[in-house]
Amino acid sequence: MEAELDAARAAVEAHLDRALAPFGGHDIAAAMRHAATGGKRLRACLVLASARLHGVPDHQAIWPACAIEALHAYSLVHDDLPCMDDDDARRGQPTVHVKWDEMTAVLTGDALQALAFELVTHPEAGSGEVRAGLARSLAQAAGGQGMVLGQALDMAAERPGAALNLEQITALQRGKTGALFEWSAAAGARMAEADPAPLIRYAAAMGQAFQIHDDVIDVTGDAEAAGKAVGKDAAKGKATFVSLLGLEGARARAAALVDEAEDALSGYGSAADPLRRIARFAISRKS
Amino acid sequence: MEAELDAARAAVEAHLDRALAPFGGHDIAAAMRHAATGGKRLRACLVLASARLHGVPDHQAIWPACAIEALHAYSLVHDDLPCMDDDDARRGQPTVHVKWDEMTAVLTGDALQALAFELVTHPEAGSGEVRAGLARSLAQAAGGQGMVLGQALDMAAERPGAALNLEQITALQRGKTGALFEWSAAAGARMAEADPAPLIRYAAAMGQAFQIHDDVIDVTGDAEAAGKAVGKDAAKGKATFVSLLGLEGARARAAALVDEAEDALSGYGSAADPLRRIARFAISRKS
Repeated sequence: MEAELDAARAAVEAHLDRALAPFGGHDIAAAMRHAATGGKRLRACLVLASARLHGVPDHQAIWPACAIEALHAYSLVHDDLPCMDDDDARRGQPTVHVKWDEMTAVLTGDALQALAFELVTHPEAGSGEVRAGLARSLAQAAGGQGMVLGQALDMAAERPGAALNLEQITALQRGKTGALFEWSAAAGARMAEADPAPLIRYAAAMGQAFQIHDDVIDVTGDAEAAGKAVGKDAAKGKATFVSLLGLEGARARAAALVDEAEDALSGYGSAADPLRRIARFAISRKS
Repeated sequence: MEAELDAARAAVEAHLDRALAPFGGHDIAAAMRHAATGGKRLRACLVLASARLHGVPDHQAIWPACAIEALHAYSLVHDDLPCMDDDDARRGQPTVHVKWDEMTAVLTGDALQALAFELVTHPEAGSGEVRAGLARSLAQAAGGQGMVLGQALDMAAERPGAALNLEQITALQRGKTGALFEWSAAAGARMAEADPAPLIRYAAAMGQAFQIHDDVIDVTGDAEAAGKAVGKDAAKGKATFVSLLGLEGARARAAALVDEAEDALSGYGSAADPLRRIARFAISRKS
């Protein structure tokens, strides 16, 4: 799995570098490169695996793969802002508002979101119908009914006395993390104009397992391995999957969700093994 | 002209209301509605006029018209943030970070940008090829080589000792304001798969005239008519078209640019009269 992620990471970084070359040497361009560097590239890996499953070549799938990473990078830059999670480090590097300033961080996130839509509509990404469909579904996954809503609910959950229950946390995470995972896993099917439904079921379960494992890392992990601060949720007294289910309960639930994700892939046979490996990686990773 | 703007405004507001209905009652959805309400709707008016010039029906053009207004609204919400222009009022209403908070303002802008791409790729907006092309050109106009870069240059221009010259201010404004005007004016041609070049020339000149007139209003206008603070640039000692050209010099240049904009339309005959009226309105408006 590490080798597959490494290969996806190398392809995405090289492609994003080329895409960002025309942006010049301004602070915003430098901060876009800073924010778009590093990370697990799990979402890109999902896009590429989903595309291969449907016979879509990598040189076509690399566009949505880079688009989802640009979109994810924008969300991290904004989530790290002082008015949101107020994080100083990300992927082992200073966050954009720390390395530059808040204004640059807001604008860099804005530019990375626009870049995601520029990349996903690149002529090499497919027919007009496919590219328009990818852009529209990406906008829906990213926006006020998807990721942004999830982030807003997450911020509201930190208010004193919020005390979310399991159902509420699950809904919140479905927006915050799940929407982009679902889009990524469905991308290959959309590019091949095939039914994305089984892949969306897979990603919904896998994304939830991923998020539960994030909560587990926040309790058990060390900051160096995670590349960011850990123990923050507990320090804030915030409800998490771990605080609600206990550590072992959370691990058991994540494992059950990975089984559920694998079940959703049964119709694809062994061609879906890369997606199965991604699901297992989601709950075994250290960061 | 006022009647045409009123009609565009009513059509856009009704359409945006419908588009935002599924977003529910969360703070982010309420703030999206707040931020997307009001304004001159000049960009929407440009899209509709450009579409009519090319025989594209309103029910198709309303999608990009609303998309550009959602994108413009996002840029205002973020520009008004304390870490950028730090404005308390906009369109005669409190800004989003004043009415809610900074976190809500960042997320609301983010969601409005995503909404722009959701709207511009709506199936009713045209063929897949047209919608993908509209989305891609919008992303380029909005992003780190367009509007976001213009805003970053504008912020840098406020640093002590920046002292921009005319060429630098013109380049800055071309990104900050011009890119969206050019996209709007070209949208109808793109929808009809016609050559957008004359309309881009028109909008480049018109947009610059619009911005010069903004600087004139900042010096001569009153806050009530403008719906926002005036005199801010002079108070900051910031270089503007007025500080560089003088008030009469700025007015003369804006008028010459409107002539240039009208010249670019000569090939369309009287069918382009609505676009000519928009150009003249750009330098006669009070707000």
